[in-house]
Amino acid sequence: MSLVKELAKKAKGASRILAGLSTAAKNEALEAVAKQLLADQHSILHGNQLDLQNGQQAGLSPALLDRLALNESRLKDMVEGLRQVAELPDPVGEVIETWTRPNGLSIDKVRVPMGVVGMVYEARPNVTVDTFALCLKAGSAVLLRGSATALNSNRALVASIKKGLAKTAVPVDVIQFVDSEDRKDVDEMLRLNGLLDLVIPRGGAGLIRRVVETATVPVIETGVGNCHIYVDQAADPTMALQILLNAKCQRYGVCNAAESLLVHQALAPSWLPTALAELQAQGVEVRGCRSVLELVPGLTAASEEDWATEFLAPIISVKIVANLEEALQHIQTYGSGHSESIITEDGETAEKFLRQVDAAAVYHNASTRFTDGFQYGFGAEIGISTQKLHARGPMGLRELTSYKYVVRGTGQVRS
Amino acid sequence: MSLVKELAKKAKGASRILAGLSTAAKNEALEAVAKQLLADQHSILHGNQLDLQNGQQAGLSPALLDRLALNESRLKDMVEGLRQVAELPDPVGEVIETWTRPNGLSIDKVRVPMGVVGMVYEARPNVTVDTFALCLKAGSAVLLRGSATALNSNRALVASIKKGLAKTAVPVDVIQFVDSEDRKDVDEMLRLNGLLDLVIPRGGAGLIRRVVETATVPVIETGVGNCHIYVDQAADPTMALQILLNAKCQRYGVCNAAESLLVHQALAPSWLPTALAELQAQGVEVRGCRSVLELVPGLTAASEEDWATEFLAPIISVKIVANLEEALQHIQTYGSGHSESIITEDGETAEKFLRQVDAAAVYHNASTRFTDGFQYGFGAEIGISTQKLHARGPMGLRELTSYKYVVRGTGQVRS
Repeated sequence: MSLVKELAKKAKGASRILAGLSTAAKNEALEAVAKQLLADQHSILHGNQLDLQNGQQAGLSPALLDRLALNESRLKDMVEGLRQVAELPDPVGEVIETWTRPNGLSIDKVRVPMGVVGMVYEARPNVTVDTFALCLKAGSAVLLRGSATALNSNRALVASIKKGLAKTAVPVDVIQFVDSEDRKDVDEMLRLNGLLDLVIPRGGAGLIRRVVETATVPVIETGVGNCHIYVDQAADPTMALQILLNAKCQRYGVCNAAESLLVHQALAPSWLPTALAELQAQGVEVRGCRSVLELVPGLTAASEEDWATEFLAPIISVKIVANLEEALQHIQTYGSGHSESIITEDGETAEKFLRQVDAAAVYHNASTRFTDGFQYGFGAEIGISTQKLHARGPMGLRELTSYKYVVRGTGQVRS
Repeated sequence: MSLVKELAKKAKGASRILAGLSTAAKNEALEAVAKQLLADQHSILHGNQLDLQNGQQAGLSPALLDRLALNESRLKDMVEGLRQVAELPDPVGEVIETWTRPNGLSIDKVRVPMGVVGMVYEARPNVTVDTFALCLKAGSAVLLRGSATALNSNRALVASIKKGLAKTAVPVDVIQFVDSEDRKDVDEMLRLNGLLDLVIPRGGAGLIRRVVETATVPVIETGVGNCHIYVDQAADPTMALQILLNAKCQRYGVCNAAESLLVHQALAPSWLPTALAELQAQGVEVRGCRSVLELVPGLTAASEEDWATEFLAPIISVKIVANLEEALQHIQTYGSGHSESIITEDGETAEKFLRQVDAAAVYHNASTRFTDGFQYGFGAEIGISTQKLHARGPMGLRELTSYKYVVRGTGQVRS
């Protein structure tokens, strides 16, 4: 049996024990792991140092090296995260619905763990700890495959987690780590039907595409966000500017940042020049449609490709539209179904936008940056789904579960 | 652009219009199609005759020919089905949850259509009409690919449906039919990411495997049911026999029929010989474990493969187990996660079984044959999911929908 299959089998076996454990037992395990991570700080930071040295030699960008880096404070944040997950309500066992049929059969729809969750991810080692914690609380085992650049960090983290679990009722096999740099192992992992119940990719567009194309196990596609802010003619100009600046500039490299601005032609002459000047003052490069270039000379022209691009950088594409219809049409053509916002004081226009835009999250007079499990009050987040199957938008603990039907009878047979 | 992609694009465009239509408009379309199918009876039955002739020449089994055959009465059943779907509540637009965040953002989780649903299916032409009706009511367009053996029947049905829709507010493009016998078209269909939101395969294990292995769009795996009846030592013997006969013999070729019987060793000597004699009297072949063969001489021995097989035929595998644990272990090893039933008067044992068996539906003192959308009161069924992602067990209208978050603010930005 191959390495990956063996790991998955171990995870599957452990998931069955985990599914039967109490909330208290799971929380105790999270606390034991929290303590162990703090106790193992030295070996974890040592592993991370190796990765950082390798990364520097391999010429990783300063931004990537920063994402990779661990220190005492970041480790404390991870531990804090574990404790927060322990405090969240346990989704497992919840009776979602209950009803009785005319023949007397009583049916309960009960929330149950997913089983074994696979995660394929890049760079940040905190994903290792977060994923483990969320899946554990949701009653599922995990099979983790991080990137080669974080191999030593992840190895040290997983070793510490297992050491912590060894002192608890939760089997150490609930966390499995593909300790290899071979891409073939990922491909094999993605085809473990019957052993893996779900795979979630977290990383750049390339990684996600490869997972979607290779996997035969169910996948939840996450992350790509080409988000728009549509400033309607009836927008409050000050609010529109504040939301635009927040959605574009608060953080550049995140999926819920705005990448494109659409402005109603009636408001553009009075509002757009100031708004674009503010963006430029914050270091944002503006790429405009022809009408924008006429209004504000000296800007770069937006290409067809720009409209479809998630820049994840201080760049924004800007288009003046004739009306709501043109804005809807543009979002339909170029949007990625992540987060879309309309700024307007006209309630009817807002409702039309909220109803017609097909995205995981649609906003009226608010920043797209709110699409996030913590901001929604889920207490945690394992990713943001951009597909329609199973879960859409921020995924918390509940979105990591499945359900089953529990049917109680008194001898009923089908006629 | 290829044929299949063109069809999917048309469906996608139409799905956007359909998503905005009222319940009344959708119900009127269902009624118009019902009338049209009756009016087109002659051409539909003519198409079906062609398929039956081709099938006979190709040597299809009588069972398959029967599944393929349409007549006046079966057509009336289809039309009745359309009218029943019209009477079901519309899932689209339902506010599933609503809450307000401390910053004043109001969040609604709203049920929305899936978009475009692909269906790859075998034999029975009624699936064409059923799928269209359920998806229409759930607000989604469909891209259908039936089997080559039903090509003329499906062609006539789809033509009639389009004719009916032409008189209504629902665009005719909400139903698209891959009118080809080329398997490459299916493969292409299964990779239309961005156009197809979901594919559901309905048919034999081979078809389902091929779809799961080929698809890059999200799939819901359906149908394979290696279902067990576990008769505990504390079972009511009469009830146990009635449930066993119903689960095994009421219909052989369905996924929720029992394929395996497990009996507690304490009850086996008194109960099993009579039970097996009853099965044999109904023409069922019994394949037993060594202990069963000792108890009832002259039976065939069950092979390792038999335990894992969904016979879909008058055959049953039978095993005597030492206790509940051995039954649970056997179901875990060989079950397909579809439907599993325990027969016992001991409430504690029953609850342990219901909790520990990992299947879409678990039963206490009832037949596995109840795993069905109509039997659960969903009013309809598009298939029975055997995966854990999105939906598990019988899938009705709600299971054909997704959701989105509608967030209303007053200028909130993220700090």
